[in-house]
Amino acid sequence: MGSYETKFKKFLNEERKIVEKKLSEALKNRKPDSLYKPGYYIIEGGGKRLRPLLVLMAAKAVGGKLKKAYNAAAAVELLHNFTLVHDDIMDNADKRRNILTVHKKYDMSTAILAGDSLLSIAYEYLLKDCNGTAKKVLSAFTKGLVEVCEGQSLDKEFEIRKAVTIDEYIEMIEKKTAAMIEMCCTVGALLGGGSAKEIKNLADFGKNIGIAFQIQDDLLDITGNENDFGKLVGGDLVEGKKTFLFLKALEVSKGTDKKKLLEVVNNKGIKPEQIQNYKDLYQKLNILEEAEKEIRHYTNLALKSVKKIRNEEYRVFFGSLADSLIKRKK
Amino acid sequence: MGSYETKFKKFLNEERKIVEKKLSEALKNRKPDSLYKPGYYIIEGGGKRLRPLLVLMAAKAVGGKLKKAYNAAAAVELLHNFTLVHDDIMDNADKRRNILTVHKKYDMSTAILAGDSLLSIAYEYLLKDCNGTAKKVLSAFTKGLVEVCEGQSLDKEFEIRKAVTIDEYIEMIEKKTAAMIEMCCTVGALLGGGSAKEIKNLADFGKNIGIAFQIQDDLLDITGNENDFGKLVGGDLVEGKKTFLFLKALEVSKGTDKKKLLEVVNNKGIKPEQIQNYKDLYQKLNILEEAEKEIRHYTNLALKSVKKIRNEEYRVFFGSLADSLIKRKK
Repeated sequence: MGSYETKFKKFLNEERKIVEKKLSEALKNRKPDSLYKPGYYIIEGGGKRLRPLLVLMAAKAVGGKLKKAYNAAAAVELLHNFTLVHDDIMDNADKRRNILTVHKKYDMSTAILAGDSLLSIAYEYLLKDCNGTAKKVLSAFTKGLVEVCEGQSLDKEFEIRKAVTIDEYIEMIEKKTAAMIEMCCTVGALLGGGSAKEIKNLADFGKNIGIAFQIQDDLLDITGNENDFGKLVGGDLVEGKKTFLFLKALEVSKGTDKKKLLEVVNNKGIKPEQIQNYKDLYQKLNILEEAEKEIRHYTNLALKSVKKIRNEEYRVFFGSLADSLIKRKK
Repeated sequence: MGSYETKFKKFLNEERKIVEKKLSEALKNRKPDSLYKPGYYIIEGGGKRLRPLLVLMAAKAVGGKLKKAYNAAAAVELLHNFTLVHDDIMDNADKRRNILTVHKKYDMSTAILAGDSLLSIAYEYLLKDCNGTAKKVLSAFTKGLVEVCEGQSLDKEFEIRKAVTIDEYIEMIEKKTAAMIEMCCTVGALLGGGSAKEIKNLADFGKNIGIAFQIQDDLLDITGNENDFGKLVGGDLVEGKKTFLFLKALEVSKGTDKKKLLEVVNNKGIKPEQIQNYKDLYQKLNILEEAEKEIRHYTNLALKSVKKIRNEEYRVFFGSLADSLIKRKK
């Protein structure tokens, strides 16, 4: 196992560099600058590059070649950044990855169009890697796009709606976050020439780890360390977001506790000085444990898929990835 | 010829109905409503459906079957409406086709997302009609998308820039308007099973008629009849738009005439009461004739392509379409 772990780290480092180069090339030397500089700005702003790495890992896991999936790897990251640019406008976010969001650095029109163009280049790159599989690969990618729009719309809808059930919440993050992770695994497995069974298995991995990833995100918002996290701990409560933790708390609470939670809904958030108070309430209601349980549930589902990967090396790689995602601090 | 003309009208009426039905189906019965109702609203708002009809005509012109191109026909209209929704935000337009624009009827976030989702459904529908040709069809469609983003970015850039040449303007409308018309012809011809030569020929038709169409649009802004046109005649001058007419006028004018035109640039537009005055200047400088000459030039190029269509019926259809586009009043 030890040597596989070292190998995995090496894989991530090396492949990340290749992906970075590909992404940079994708937007350089294009005209007009007014369109492509803002796109380049968000792409160069960094990120974990989780999605492209998943494409590459999935391609290899089914016995395919990395070089047949690099353009697709770039494509999923371009698609991801398209969603970030447009989401940041909708969320009126000033910063992302510690730098100004595109609409703050430039202006709103520029950001809308830069987002659109990132999506157009995403398809352009995806097509470079598609040959016999074009229809399947593009269908998976497009399904991911359709769902991410639906997920974002549900997310915005939930901000206004008073009552949201946990099932509705899970459906929303399935579309907003997990569908895209699932798509990365599907596209990689398709390009790697995987069997229908292998493709389905990796897609399932992606979907479940995607859900776990998002609930982990909700949990980190309250348990994270300000330095690691890079943003205000408890920010979701301040913004009145209906996260897994909040909806679970609403579900299990009664009496004055429930009343206190409903105040967050009615006032559309709380004051920063109230964060500790609500954190205490979450602890009293055992919400952090409930969230951990849910994360474990979806992670275990993902790990079941990992066991079915035939290639031993990539079985370890996918296991390590799942592990690192749920142990992350940011 | 007479009977072909009647046949063409019948073709347009019948096919337009089928396209309308397909478009309506594409967005109905989808959830969430918060995402798809705004998309449905713009699609149901009407339009000439020129682009889907071109897809169908191109498919038939090369001997293909209409039923193999209906989904693609819907796709190009969905793509077109995606550009309208986002452009209207960027242009801060209140109305389109005499009804409120999506961001005015709903809000900006809703409109951004509705636009994104129209694009996602466009790809979904295009994929329905793609089989062996998937890569080529999707590449043509994606090239159209890349170019329409570039064209819109140039258009916004020209609004701010003081000096724009006529060549730069033609490049902009090639990308913003003509590339999409060209793509419709290419996609139709591909799906209809046309030869490389036939595809190129119809693509050329689309590109040239697209340029003619846009210059005609610029001309109608000043020569149009308020009732036919449905918006303020001279609106481009009021907004200080650098249209073909305006740039031509700048190019040929001297002395006080040129100074008067530069005032439009510096003041970013004129007052409505000045429209007649500038219209007189255009007339003095022979600008309306210059625009007509340019429209004729590109229309003639398009008609050269029409002559090469082997199918006699569709040769007449394409000729009639070119004719109706340059004779249109709105």
